[in-house]
Amino acid sequence: MNARQPEQLPLTRSSVLAAHDVIKSRAHRTPIFTSSSLSAGITAGNNLYFKAENLQKGGAFKFRGASFNLSRLSHEELQRGVCTHSSGNHAGALALAAKERGIKCFVVMVSLSAKFSLVFRLPCMSYGAEIMFCEPNAPARAATLAMVQARTGATFIPPYDAINTILGQGTAFLELSEQVPEKLAAVITPVGGGGLLAGTALAAEGTGVRVFGAEPAGADDCARGLEEGKRREDVDANTIADGLRTPVGVLNFPIIQEKVERVIVVSDEEVIEAMRLLWERLKLVVEPSSATAFAAVRNPAFRELGIKGPIGIILSGGNVDMSKPLPWVVL
Amino acid sequence: MNARQPEQLPLTRSSVLAAHDVIKSRAHRTPIFTSSSLSAGITAGNNLYFKAENLQKGGAFKFRGASFNLSRLSHEELQRGVCTHSSGNHAGALALAAKERGIKCFVVMVSLSAKFSLVFRLPCMSYGAEIMFCEPNAPARAATLAMVQARTGATFIPPYDAINTILGQGTAFLELSEQVPEKLAAVITPVGGGGLLAGTALAAEGTGVRVFGAEPAGADDCARGLEEGKRREDVDANTIADGLRTPVGVLNFPIIQEKVERVIVVSDEEVIEAMRLLWERLKLVVEPSSATAFAAVRNPAFRELGIKGPIGIILSGGNVDMSKPLPWVVL
Repeated sequence: MNARQPEQLPLTRSSVLAAHDVIKSRAHRTPIFTSSSLSAGITAGNNLYFKAENLQKGGAFKFRGASFNLSRLSHEELQRGVCTHSSGNHAGALALAAKERGIKCFVVMVSLSAKFSLVFRLPCMSYGAEIMFCEPNAPARAATLAMVQARTGATFIPPYDAINTILGQGTAFLELSEQVPEKLAAVITPVGGGGLLAGTALAAEGTGVRVFGAEPAGADDCARGLEEGKRREDVDANTIADGLRTPVGVLNFPIIQEKVERVIVVSDEEVIEAMRLLWERLKLVVEPSSATAFAAVRNPAFRELGIKGPIGIILSGGNVDMSKPLPWVVL
Repeated sequence: MNARQPEQLPLTRSSVLAAHDVIKSRAHRTPIFTSSSLSAGITAGNNLYFKAENLQKGGAFKFRGASFNLSRLSHEELQRGVCTHSSGNHAGALALAAKERGIKCFVVMVSLSAKFSLVFRLPCMSYGAEIMFCEPNAPARAATLAMVQARTGATFIPPYDAINTILGQGTAFLELSEQVPEKLAAVITPVGGGGLLAGTALAAEGTGVRVFGAEPAGADDCARGLEEGKRREDVDANTIADGLRTPVGVLNFPIIQEKVERVIVVSDEEVIEAMRLLWERLKLVVEPSSATAFAAVRNPAFRELGIKGPIGIILSGGNVDMSKPLPWVVL
């Protein structure tokens, strides 16, 4: 069975405010970072405010959505545990949120990239989640998840394509706008499945803050879908931003279509350069997906918009495979 | 001429408190980080509190000492500017502190390691400091510095071997002990020249907090000096912890001798392992010198002390040459 979704649609900023009330005692209120040298690099002299969700529990914003989903479950559902499919940050976040509530968690991971997924498998295991592997294709994943649900009765908590996930992720923006000492002109987040971007767009509605997404050229299904007026159902992903290789969700796309001004597409080279700047200047370990949003702000397409005023950038996560060479180091 | 030093000796905790009153409006009050997984790795289950001075202005605690030194200069002295010798964090910190006050800064750097010093040269230059290079030996450095002083009248701000530098560095501990929600049992800092460790020991005096230093085996002049009861005048440094390759200072050593319980010596392998853990778990970019203090806490020699209660660890800085491979990545 799937997690219950709220009955009142359409979703609004109030829905995100309500979600924040629920999760704020469980998630970290992550700090804001600034850097005069990084801000100075932007043409219009915009102050940049970085929301450090890499310092969130589990190392990514995903803990917000996972937490909010768990809060909607009944006592009986909690007793049977939760399950998901993810080879990335959502898996670790759900495992940690489940551990904190003392409930079981089952994670289906693709067996494709054993080395890559170790970064996520180890935390999942340390949080006590049970991991099942499947072949790297959607039918195999769905079948494995169905098997887990049949065996355990666990509730499926989707990584992005679910209302409660979207509402939970949107809470990062609420904090950001409270923490910034001036009124934001714009906010930008990376977009993979679109949970963070759709949630941010809902949270920003009516505030006058312009909302942008950032996507790597090697997985730009959202930007293309917006151009074509129709969600693309799959993505032939080839980018260093491993968290963004998924197609944008069915529920997420129309929210983005309606409320997001534009998705800026950047090259992997731009992502790597932005990532290095964030590591060097902010002294923060951020993953390539996070750097995508900063790369977009540095991209001419964004600069040409001529936005005046402060810009919020959500640094989505910091789970990097440290056994690999730094992507900008020429060996 | 050298910066004026306070006339009232001996130095006490009050001297550090007074320094903090002066610099707190100029330096960042850097945040504290915790990690249940890192704390769980310590035998006695001590809560660990990391003071993130890598997030200090200029990327290291050195900004504190630089700021305090500048605050002691007369208007006339400020007009003539300041100078120092350093190929590391002190150079950048002084350049930035000088820039913020709108005064000139001259830095003497050794020309030995052009590539390494680029990490420090670029910020110095961006802060508007004038850089002079000299041969990599103490007489050449002193001669170049004397030349600069003769030409400019700039006041020499020593990197560690000066009372005001020591007092400024000690202010990090005052914040740490305020920020930690429980009473610290111990605090540990890396020791190179000993500014941070001596300042911390002064700041902790009378508080009941036990003070430790951490030194890499490849530059353990302070630990050896303490054993032998006499400061070693030089150090045959060979360690990855580049910030700690300097011998402990003349003023610093007796303070450490009197007030520091012990300096724990760790191998470069331990430093690298600790550094990787800090990057992976705290998502913070810290330099090897910072990791030395955490490595010491994980070392059996420290664990055998059986300290009960919370331990403060000062992460001294985050200026890492990102063009080099990560030290733990086997290529």
